Amino acid sequence: MNSANGKIVEFESAEAGNGTPAATGFKMFNRIVDWITNDRMQLINVTDRINEVVRKSGVRDGIVHLQSLHTTTAVFINEWQDALLHDVREFLDDLVNREHYFRHNDPQYSDCERKNADSHLRGMVMGQSLCLQVRNSAVLLGTWQSIILAEFDGPRSRSVSIQVSGI
Amino acid sequence: MNSANGKIVEFESAEAGNGTPAATGFKMFNRIVDWITNDRMQLINVTDRINEVVRKSGVRDGIVHLQSLHTTTAVFINEWQDALLHDVREFLDDLVNREHYFRHNDPQYSDCERKNADSHLRGMVMGQSLCLQVRNSAVLLGTWQSIILAEFDGPRSRSVSIQVSGI
Amino acid sequence: MNSANGKIVEFESAEAGNGTPAATGFKMFNRIVDWITNDRMQLINVTDRINEVVRKSGVRDGIVHLQSLHTTTAVFINEWQDALLHDVREFLDDLVNREHYFRHNDPQYSDCERKNADSHLRGMVMGQSLCLQVRNSAVLLGTWQSIILAEFDGPRSRSVSIQVSGI
Repeated sequence: MNSANGKIVEFESAEAGNGTPAATGFKMFNRIVDWITNDRMQLINVTDRINEVVRKSGVRDGIVHLQSLHTTTAVFINEWQDALLHDVREFLDDLVNREHYFRHNDPQYSDCERKNADSHLRGMVMGQSLCLQVRNSAVLLGTWQSIILAEFDGPRSRSVSIQVSGI
Repeated sequence: MNSANGKIVEFESAEAGNGTPAATGFKMFNRIVDWITNDRMQLINVTDRINEVVRKSGVRDGIVHLQSLHTTTAVFINEWQDALLHDVREFLDDLVNREHYFRHNDPQYSDCERKNADSHLRGMVMGQSLCLQVRNSAVLLGTWQSIILAEFDGPRSRSVSIQVSGI
Repeated sequence: MNSANGKIVEFESAEAGNGTPAATGFKMFNRIVDWITNDRMQLINVTDRINEVVRKSGVRDGIVHLQSLHTTTAVFINEWQDALLHDVREFLDDLVNREHYFRHNDPQYSDCERKNADSHLRGMVMGQSLCLQVRNSAVLLGTWQSIILAEFDGPRSRSVSIQVSGI
């Protein structure tokens, strides 16, 4: 039974611990950053931009919260590699078939003229809200983790609200 | 290559910035709100209710965290439009076919009498935890974003724990 | 129309409210915990381990943020029942068919030798970041909610960064 916990070895990284309460006060920093997209479906690597905002915030340890303000977009983590990004787009295309009948695209039921039900469903599954840790004034990311903003109904101008909080 | 970053234009909204550290102290406010649902799959617009809790909290800028306390529910963002909500329910129905064989529904393997493996899988994919930003004592949402509580195994009474924190 | 809000009954739990601002200061506590996995796809119940870290943190009320540092893993909530865990693995196997053609697995397009495009796509959909509330020095979880770390490309050593913050 490979879901049993019996054989799993756990380690705790000593260097990572800090049990001291915050000597300095709680800080909060807000920015909205906009991107203009070029394609209907497009993946944008926003890692460097988020790190700039985190550096500016003055927060050393805490949380950065990203919230895209559009239902037909998403924010998530994956490796930034061209071949994989191609697979990601194909997967998301297959997950929601644009040619399927949707009431949201049917003038009899909907006043939406963008015919973008597929974009809404992709945005809903992938999510528009993402929390990541801030450590030593940078976003904490594993070696292969990049922060990706996904456009599902472009080209458009898209806003992401970035909140950095902590100490 | 439409995943290239080269042509993407970025803006930073000047009005959105505030670099001042929190003059006032850190606040935290907790509430549990219950909903009684009427159908097996049901989508509930909880935006106004969450905004009431945020107003009561006295937090001006920060985070509101929503956590549904049930595995067969979810909390997520989408546009609140009847035609689209119909598409959302059909999509979630198709994503996990209730008629599929599941061990969780098989008395030989499981003591669960609700036959709700499909509800568990929908809840798992859509998630029960959602962070959103609070700005000027309200939940920050784009024009078309509503907060949706999804029931996947009703009718039931469902609790969502709401935590507002910030300054 | 079962998405109408009209018939929905809402309750607010009186016991759950606390409107008092934080008398004591804001605290933050960070730990990285490692797990060694044994199978390519494996589900690990990390609830008890997370609760130990929360207890150590000294935070009574707040947020625990979990972030797996690997793109081919995920952290999410579900019931911990053997029959259901079997269904979860089958569902994730079906959601992304490993035998499908992926550029990430094709030496012509990719230098990745692990042939793990399916693992990346599962990790992307399920997510590597999870926020949960801390109440009374424990993770707030419903009766049937467990915290699950999912390995999608094991066996490997996997690190999860745990941040507890609050009062």
